[in-house]
Amino acid sequence: MNPEVLLSRIRVVLCRPSHPGNIGAAARAMKTMGLSSLYLVSPKHFPDPEADTRATGAVDVLARATVTSSLKEALAGTAFAVALSARQRDIGPVLGAPRETVARLIAEAAGGDVALVFGNETVGLTNDEILHCQAAVTIPTNPEFSSLNLGSAVQVLCYECRMAAFLEKPPVVEQGVTPFASPVATHDEIEGLYGHLETIMTDSGFYNPEQPGRLFPKLRRLFGRVRLEKDEINILRGILASTQVKTSHGRKG
Amino acid sequence: MNPEVLLSRIRVVLCRPSHPGNIGAAARAMKTMGLSSLYLVSPKHFPDPEADTRATGAVDVLARATVTSSLKEALAGTAFAVALSARQRDIGPVLGAPRETVARLIAEAAGGDVALVFGNETVGLTNDEILHCQAAVTIPTNPEFSSLNLGSAVQVLCYECRMAAFLEKPPVVEQGVTPFASPVATHDEIEGLYGHLETIMTDSGFYNPEQPGRLFPKLRRLFGRVRLEKDEINILRGILASTQVKTSHGRKG
Repeated sequence: MNPEVLLSRIRVVLCRPSHPGNIGAAARAMKTMGLSSLYLVSPKHFPDPEADTRATGAVDVLARATVTSSLKEALAGTAFAVALSARQRDIGPVLGAPRETVARLIAEAAGGDVALVFGNETVGLTNDEILHCQAAVTIPTNPEFSSLNLGSAVQVLCYECRMAAFLEKPPVVEQGVTPFASPVATHDEIEGLYGHLETIMTDSGFYNPEQPGRLFPKLRRLFGRVRLEKDEINILRGILASTQVKTSHGRKG
Repeated sequence: MNPEVLLSRIRVVLCRPSHPGNIGAAARAMKTMGLSSLYLVSPKHFPDPEADTRATGAVDVLARATVTSSLKEALAGTAFAVALSARQRDIGPVLGAPRETVARLIAEAAGGDVALVFGNETVGLTNDEILHCQAAVTIPTNPEFSSLNLGSAVQVLCYECRMAAFLEKPPVVEQGVTPFASPVATHDEIEGLYGHLETIMTDSGFYNPEQPGRLFPKLRRLFGRVRLEKDEINILRGILASTQVKTSHGRKG
């Protein structure tokens, strides 16, 4: 696939950025590498003249940026999201190295929109935000000074995206048999499954929303590892729905 | 050779930088990647409070920076220097890609001091300055917007240096957090899940054992991709059991 198209499908999502200068630096970093789709989740100051100044010739990226109030909204319509994190979380995708993780992101972009998700300058991403992503990446830094600027982190990963998108890929060997697969489920479809699970489990008494514990983080960890397909979402929701129908009308047997 | 030693031998040389903020950003970018040796050739403003502000925790790199009046002085004692250039010069080293060129720089660092040479923000390096270097590198950018910030260019090449010094396997920083995982489920435990699923689905009418179709192959394909853990088997069977209990005793709500 055309590398420019792949790059155009990568959303850069900044969660709760504090400094408008970093938003501008991110826009410039993106544009130099051929990315253009910027999402801002609850930015502290935006629009802001400082963002425009740091963006220099990339103010068009700022002008077209989408502002949302949650990461979930920013990921709507994506099929794959990678969270940047400086540290491994207790529950969450295993941290990968930039090159391998970005190679996977680019491969997923062949199928639709994907996202690179960055946290706040001081506190990073929340555990819940990371659990909305299917993969996590860390940029290796000096253990004695790991304070990578937000704009710099965006620059490094966008650079890796450009390098990966333009990489010559060896042709897949023709095997004669196409293994079964259905299209990958979107973020919205996966969230729909979680919503359905929550209803069923609450109804059955297995889950108490007032004492959520780590049940949903563990379910997100499980299904986050697998890259669910549309067909699989349908099967799982079909199973869930069948137990609902049964209980509404009483036991059949 | 020790990767930290290799990185300590790389001088970052900024020729005639105009904006002190970029000097500070370069110092921070260097330190995050384990580089510490900064040379400034005829900086317009240095020292400068704006440089200190942008350097944040890397002011020690600024404090130890060497200021010279020519590139020749800054390169004294080096064995190999790489010039960053956006364009191929009429006479000068052939522009290489970052990864290959940095790999060569790191190889040369095993023998002594080396340098990465950056030009002025607006005009870059002069032809004469490039001819003081043994190699040249360009960072691939969007041809419609190649305006890479000086600090960002330093960040990308220092990142490549760290990746190359650690042979693309940078050490995983000790984080103190072991990602959550439970032991992998055994074959019998996984088969127990499928048996449980079959009971529930047959009972609910979702699955007809006399017309099995591809439902179980698809479920096996799904769960076979994940490497289910014991804890996850327990959760999934807990959900299934809760729907059974409910139907045996009638709807609770």
